[in-house]
Formats: sequence, structure tokens, C-alpha cells
Amino acid sequence: MPDEDPPGTPRVDFQVHPSRYRHWRLATDGPVATLTMDVDEQGGLVPGYELKLNSYDLGVDIELYDAVQRLRFSHPEVRAVVLTSGKEKVFCAGANIRMLAASPHPWKVNFCKFTNETRNGIEDATASSGQTYLAAVNGTASGGGYELALACEHIMLIDDRSSAVALPELPLLGVLPGTGGLTRVTDKRHVRRDLADYFATKSEGVGGTRAVQWRLVDEAVPRAVWPQTVAERAAELAGRSSRPAGVLAQGIELTPLPKTRTGAQITYRHVSARLDRQRGVVEVTVKGPDTEAPGGIAEVHQQGAGFWTLAMTRELDDLILDLRTNELELGTWVFRAVGDPGLVLAHDRLLLDHADDWLANEIIGYLKRTLKRLDVTSRSLLALIEPGSCFAGSLLELALAADRSYQLAGTFEDQEPEAEPATVTVGPMNLGSLPMGNGLTRLQTRYLGDDKGLAAVEKLAGEPLRAEDAERLGLVTFAPDDIDWDEEVRITIEERASFSPDALSGMEANYRFAGPETMETKIFGRLTAWQNWIFNRPNAAGAEGALRRFGTGQRAHFDRKRV
Amino acid sequence: MPDEDPPGTPRVDFQVHPSRYRHWRLATDGPVATLTMDVDEQGGLVPGYELKLNSYDLGVDIELYDAVQRLRFSHPEVRAVVLTSGKEKVFCAGANIRMLAASPHPWKVNFCKFTNETRNGIEDATASSGQTYLAAVNGTASGGGYELALACEHIMLIDDRSSAVALPELPLLGVLPGTGGLTRVTDKRHVRRDLADYFATKSEGVGGTRAVQWRLVDEAVPRAVWPQTVAERAAELAGRSSRPAGVLAQGIELTPLPKTRTGAQITYRHVSARLDRQRGVVEVTVKGPDTEAPGGIAEVHQQGAGFWTLAMTRELDDLILDLRTNELELGTWVFRAVGDPGLVLAHDRLLLDHADDWLANEIIGYLKRTLKRLDVTSRSLLALIEPGSCFAGSLLELALAADRSYQLAGTFEDQEPEAEPATVTVGPMNLGSLPMGNGLTRLQTRYLGDDKGLAAVEKLAGEPLRAEDAERLGLVTFAPDDIDWDEEVRITIEERASFSPDALSGMEANYRFAGPETMETKIFGRLTAWQNWIFNRPNAAGAEGALRRFGTGQRAHFDRKRV
Repeated sequence: MPDEDPPGTPRVDFQVHPSRYRHWRLATDGPVATLTMDVDEQGGLVPGYELKLNSYDLGVDIELYDAVQRLRFSHPEVRAVVLTSGKEKVFCAGANIRMLAASPHPWKVNFCKFTNETRNGIEDATASSGQTYLAAVNGTASGGGYELALACEHIMLIDDRSSAVALPELPLLGVLPGTGGLTRVTDKRHVRRDLADYFATKSEGVGGTRAVQWRLVDEAVPRAVWPQTVAERAAELAGRSSRPAGVLAQGIELTPLPKTRTGAQITYRHVSARLDRQRGVVEVTVKGPDTEAPGGIAEVHQQGAGFWTLAMTRELDDLILDLRTNELELGTWVFRAVGDPGLVLAHDRLLLDHADDWLANEIIGYLKRTLKRLDVTSRSLLALIEPGSCFAGSLLELALAADRSYQLAGTFEDQEPEAEPATVTVGPMNLGSLPMGNGLTRLQTRYLGDDKGLAAVEKLAGEPLRAEDAERLGLVTFAPDDIDWDEEVRITIEERASFSPDALSGMEANYRFAGPETMETKIFGRLTAWQNWIFNRPNAAGAEGALRRFGTGQRAHFDRKRV
Repeated sequence: MPDEDPPGTPRVDFQVHPSRYRHWRLATDGPVATLTMDVDEQGGLVPGYELKLNSYDLGVDIELYDAVQRLRFSHPEVRAVVLTSGKEKVFCAGANIRMLAASPHPWKVNFCKFTNETRNGIEDATASSGQTYLAAVNGTASGGGYELALACEHIMLIDDRSSAVALPELPLLGVLPGTGGLTRVTDKRHVRRDLADYFATKSEGVGGTRAVQWRLVDEAVPRAVWPQTVAERAAELAGRSSRPAGVLAQGIELTPLPKTRTGAQITYRHVSARLDRQRGVVEVTVKGPDTEAPGGIAEVHQQGAGFWTLAMTRELDDLILDLRTNELELGTWVFRAVGDPGLVLAHDRLLLDHADDWLANEIIGYLKRTLKRLDVTSRSLLALIEPGSCFAGSLLELALAADRSYQLAGTFEDQEPEAEPATVTVGPMNLGSLPMGNGLTRLQTRYLGDDKGLAAVEKLAGEPLRAEDAERLGLVTFAPDDIDWDEEVRITIEERASFSPDALSGMEANYRFAGPETMETKIFGRLTAWQNWIFNRPNAAGAEGALRRFGTGQRAHFDRKRV
């Protein structure tokens, strides 16, 4: 049944629209937006649990991701975003425990990964888009609820003698906070490590003055002055924003994606994917622009979601999320890029020439985040660079993100002997605008400790490089010719499918994040990895483990051995 | 049976002497030492496997650790160390697979941790002691064998058309290299990440010119000129050393530790530990010096292994290793320090005043490494600061390494109402000589992002601080008085024992390494953590997993889901 889904898997759809939100309300009032979490208890993505106390599952977080994206693209007038709760006495209880307890291991890890990406996106909106997030914690924020607040620039906690912030995962569930809580507490908020230890062992959390003294929140505000203080603080943060005002501050609509999907094929306008269940492979093809770049930035605004870079990025983003969540057994993704390299570079140039335009800034930033999503994806990534391909500038990043790249030397003699040999082209977009989570560009990571190699490649920016040169310069991994190509590519793909998928996940994550670490890489590295282990251990996930026993009235049984 | 060992556990002893080595030969010739690995196949620490092809188990690595230590303390004339193999055609096949396959999960992880520490110690000897390690890879170096070479400053590979370096863990065993291989390949040797990917998927490895081109080794040397080239290179590295020559370059003997051990008590001269199996607690007491500090550095040399700081450090190091390996269920270590803070500070001062003396440098460096060993130990660490304690200078590091510290405010009224209240004292030893793996001092890590707090504490260096001041300054976690002390300490310890040990391991490791990351923290964080997960997965450790199926002729069966 190559055309059908594997049975029994509910397929998750990441496309949503504010008009269909079940769990969030998005309201804007001039420069201040308010994003109100009001989770529909009956609105779980999968049957079997109720989303009580503003707890969330993947469906809730998909809406949050959508809201954050739309605020950036459709509401450029917004300079501060108040994140608050629509419930009485509770801000957010974090990830739903029954959902976690009932979920298979990969679902838990994928869920954590996506929620992490969304929270990183909130921080990125504050840092790069002048949309500063304010957590108005109007009730207890627990676990993932507090971690959501931690992603905001400023945390206000209502001071009513009962509301608190808490990370109760360890004492209640025998797991760690899954969305950066431990790292942000020390590295972002600078809570002292021993106080942080105490905090993470108290399921009831810490509130009031003590929460401020320990830097867990920025201020504790009495209920009587809550609404006006929130409004004041939002106005202050909006006043500090770098967002431009003026004629071009008209938002664009993120229109529905032109997506068709079967069990064997996912097709958008610029991106398509063939799902080969036999080989465990997805063959992704990204098409370059089919038209000239617009004459100026105003035209980019007019094209809106139709502008190639934005349209392609949205499609790629959706594809990554779809495959990552719905196609766990397709372990190797093979990327091809087809089209005219010159058109890609022209689109890049237009964006970079107008990097101070809010929309150009958003498009580049979105491409940056989407490529980061690829970097943390636990799949083997290969790039095949063939005649007719357009791995140039922003699309070259796909090859640089890949674990390996193969560029054909010469042409396919049987098929098109007269074709121009494939080239790769470094462009200005590769030189700083699309950093990885480690703070380096993919080129810098590639040439870690090899400044000479990096300089040689940078000097050739703009030059189309054939396979022999690209290999010599270190831009591609291998450059087989026509005679060896099929065999070499086939063996690589088959070999990949023969290896332990766990060991591949570990190895690839190691190599992709060579070099320095940042809060972001620490969060993914430590939490996804350590949590990965903890999620798998009987002490959490076993029949007598804390995660499974939660709420049953029975205590968890632990194997006490320390590892 | 509180006095006896839990049944069925072979107790590992970390004390060894070159005269009893079964697996290594240590020879010195002026400034060059040669450390020859020649593993006794029948010399496994645990029955059930043969140590073929210079493969190693914990017992082999304990000897290596001993040799590295003795080179530092007993052979100050040595400036370069050649690490080579005594076998034909094989340098080292890495960790013994049958040993790994048969070992329970905690053993595997503890084994990796210790071998990592030993390799970090080799790098530290190169960096801090002017004893530069040269890997003379005179046959294939595979897995942990290549990782051993990676810990050396310079790698020479014999070029004989068959010898290669390899990391075959992923293709053969479905696990990752366990001692920093993936991290050192990219971050230390700057192998390009896609080539590193290819390399780690080829079980046969890479040899000859290609290994040099890819930077996997520094040179490939034909067999005909091998001995003289190794000798030349060793002489060059020795010539670059910063080790002092001259009258004081007489080594000291690391005499046998005065250790007695039962199932309930471990006693050395300055360090003792009470093992409370009921509560899952070890109560460690470190005694300060009982004599004045020597009058000068010459007397330190005379005292040798009897000099307090060195003697205490050796005992602490052995205790950590003993407890970590042999007492997995004792999850909380409680530290007390008793004695005269002034004497600790005087010993510190003597060492720091002579930091350019080779022995003083070694003693400080050993204390640094021992405290790092504590930092990466998966146990809850508490410090109790009571009247009569001496948490000052180097011993204050124990409180700073702890996850939490409790300092008694006032005295124990029932016991000794007239006692001087407990104090803690920051000394010069806390201000830079004992960095953690993250490159920061424990004080800097504690005051991460709080420069004012750090400056305030540094300004009070030398002042004994009572509980109220120490708490206010953030030097200790809590300062309960006599009335609350017992209850608060008891609850903390009981609570710790009630939590999931896995989640505690994850949380503590997160908080201990707040702030920046280094190659060292990456190695421990990524490999111990990711490997922890991979080691636990059925794809490696299950009955049909790669680790268990290795050598059976049967292929591993993998669950192909990517996580």
C-alpha cells in the first residue's frame, strides 16, 4: 500500500488559523497584543485525556506557534505581546500529564522538541523582531506553564498568597522540565544554582517576594493593581521596541498553504516530497524561484505570502513538521534543489539590501528558524547536487545543513550529456544572516578551526563552483562522476537505513553542533538528550514509574541505582 | 547486615602500583617516558570475557590512570610521554565489547565516565604539566583505541596499508563512541563534520594519507622509519615543554593509601565515610590539617605524599571512585569538613605562593581534577557547615560543589552552647586555581550573571563569615538555627531519597554546569547523556540489539523509529 498511510497513526496537521483556535485568543490593540491561553478541556488532539487547568498538548502548542508567526507577519504594528491566561487562578499547568503518560516515547520527544522551538521563537521575536513578550502570570504557572513564562522577556506574577511559579516535574513525575526550564532558570534568569535546585524539588513552587528575590520572576504585583500594572508594563516594553512605524507597517496575510498529501507524496507549490517507505527515505525537492526577483521591496510587500522565499520557507517548515511528527520510520531525507541559481541569489540580494525593512527582516528570520528546525531534526540529511540544481545562497544552506552532500562531477552521460554540470554558489546569505543555534553560520561550523578554508570559500562568493572545485574547497563531501554516482548514493542511503536509528540520532546531533554552545544548543542537547533517557527509564515510563503512577494515588517505585 | 557489602557485587579497587600492572609497561628515559599498552587477555576485572586485541575494561583503565598520575608526581623529569602498543599490528581495539554487552547499564555509564576522566587527565597533563602526550599508533586504533589517541597532543599513524584509525561503534554496535571521540574529532582536531560523519560510519576506518588529509591523525609514517620518527617527535615535544629542570625536579612517591573499608565505613587518614544503606546516604568527613603548614616549598617536597593537601586529595579521589563504582544505591553524599580553617588557608597559601614549583602545581592541579570528578558524579551532594568545621579555601570548594549547603546559625544549644558558630571563608584558592569543566570557578558559576554578588564575596576573601552573612551573600543555601537544623537537614535527605534517581541525575548535571560550555562539558554532557539513552534502548541493549548481537553472526534487529 505505498499510497496509503501506515495504519493506526493519527496524522497531525500543523496548519491552523486564528478563526479556528480552540485554545487561544489573539487580540491586538495598537502596539500591544494580548495572547490569552484558555484551553478547551475537551479539545485534546488525541482522545484519552482532558486538558484541565490550562494544560497543553501538541494541538494547543500548534495554535501558539501559529499565533506567534502571525503576530510577526500580519501585525507589524505590534511591539509588545502580553501572554496571559483566561482561567481563574491558574496561568498554565504545563504539558498534560495523562497525555505524556499515554504517549509513546517518540511522541514525547517530538512534542518537547516542537514546544522548545516555539519558545525559542518567542525569544527570537523579542530579540530580532521588536515584539517583546511579557508573561502576565495571573495564577499558578507550573512546569511547562512556568517554562512558557521563562521564554518571555519580563515575568509578572500576581501576588495573591496562592499563585506561584513551579517546576514540579522532578518531585511529581520523575522527569525533567522538557522545555528549557532548568537551563533558562540559571543561564537566562541567573537564579543561583542551589536555589534553583531547591525550587525544582518543591512541587508547590515559590511565589510572592521570594520568587522575586530568587529572580524566578521580575515582579510580584498585588491583585488590586494587576490590570493597570500589566498595561503599564506592556506600554513600557512597546515603547522600547525597534519595530518601525509608518507606511510599510502593513501586515501581510499568511494564506493557506497549497498542500496535497497522500501516503506517498506531499506536494506544495515550491516544495515536494516523495515518501519511499520501502527504503525508509523521503526525497525532497525544493524548487527555486520561477520568476525574476521583484524590482523593489514594495513589490515584496505586495506579493506577501506569494513571495518566493517566504512561500518556500513556509512549505519547507510545514514539511519538516509533518514528516518529523507523522513519519517516524522515514529515517533519511534526501534534498534536491532545482532551478536557476541566479534567481535564488537575486531574491537573497533583494532581502539583504532591505534588511531594515520589517518584512524582509521577518522573511530572513523565518528562514533562519526553519533551517534551525532542520538542524535539530533526528533524521539523516543528505543533499544531492545534480545538473539543473540551484544550491546557491539560501538554498545552499540545505546542503550545508545536510550530514553529507554529493555533487556530480560532469553530467549524466546517458541522460543529458550536454547539460551544464552542477554548481554550488556561496552567496551573501551564507555569510551571517542565517546562524545556527550555536551562534555560527553553517559555513563557520563547517570550517571550524580552519579559518583559511573559510576565507578561501568566502572569497569565491558569487562564483558557481563545479564539483571538483567544491570538493577541493570542502564545500561538498564527495564529488563522484557519472560512473560512480548511482552506486555511491545508493550505498549511502542503504547503509544509513541499516544503522541503529538511535545511534544515528546521537551522532548527527553531535556533529551538527560542532563548536561553541549557547543556551539554545544546551536546551536541545541537554533536555532532549537527557530527557530522552529519562523518558525511557522504568523509573519514569515503566508500569510502576512516576509518570505512569501520577494521579493514581499509588507511589512510584524506583530502582534506586544512580547512573 | 549494615556492616557487610550488598551481596553479589564485586568491589572495584582503584589502588594499583606499576609493579603490579598487568596491562601496561611504564618506562622512562630522561625526558621521554613510554607507556606501552600490552593487555593481558586473561586479566579482565570481571569473569566472562577475554581482553583480545588490546581491548580494555575498567581494570586496564585503572592502571592507565595510575600511570598518568605517577608520571606527574614521581617523574617530573619527563616532558613527553609516548603512548604506544606492545602488540603486533594493533594499537588498541577500544573497550571490550563482550564486557560492555554483559554489563548492566550503570556499569557501562560509570565505566565511560572514568575513562573520560582519564583521557581528560591526559590532556590536562599536556596543557598544565608540560608532559605532552604523543600517540604512536603502531597498528589499528579502533573505537576507544582511537579515542585514546585523540586525547594525545600529536597522533602518528604507522603507514603500512593496513593500519587505520576508526570509530566503528555506530555501524558495528549501534552505540556512540563513549569517550569523547565525536566531540574531539570536530572540536579538537577540526575534522570537517561531513567527513567525520563518513568516518564514523565506516567500521574499517581510514588510514594513510587520507587520515592525514582529513586531520584524523597528524602524520602517517612508513614502517621503515617508524622507530626513529617516533623518537624524533618525542624529543621535539619534550623540547617544547615548560617543565622545570634542576634540583627540585626530584619526584615524590605516591605511597599506598591508609585505607580501611567495611560495608559500613571507609576510613583514611584525613577522609572518612559512613555508609548508611538504610537512608541511602554517605556521610563524608574531611579533616583539615592537624599541623602547621610547612615553612617553605622544600619541606612540601620532603613531606611528599604526606603533605596534607596532597594526602587529602588522594583520599578524596579514591573515595569518590570507590563510592561511585561500588555503591550505586547510596544516592546522597553529605560532606562535613572539620578542623582549623586557618590551617587550610595556610596550606593553600603555601601552594599558591609557589605555584611555579612543579610539585605545588601538580598538587593544585590534582585537587582541581578531583573536584571536577565530584562535579560529574551522579549523586546528590550536600554540605553541612557546623561549629568546628573548616570550609575555607580549598575545602570551601566542597560546599561550592554541593547541590545545596546548610550552615548552622548560632550553635547547637544542647551540645556545645559555648562553641564558636560555624564560619565559611573564601580564600585565594577559590578565585581561579580550581576551575570547573566549564572554565569558570565554582564561585563564578554560582554567581553567574551576578557580577555584583561575586565582587562582594571576593572582597570579603579571608574573612570568616557566619551563617547569617554567608546566606545573605549567597555563599550558602540556607542558614537554619539550632531549632530548625535537624528537621530541615533530615527532610532534605529523606526527600532526596524519595525522588527519581534518574531525574536527580539530570537536574543536578544541568545546574552544576550552568553557564558556558567547553569541550569537556560537551563530552560529559553529550556522551554520558546521549549514550545513557542509547545504552538503554533495545536497539543497543535489547536481546536483539546490536551490542548484544555483536559477534554472534546474527544481525541486530532495529526498531526503525527515529527519535
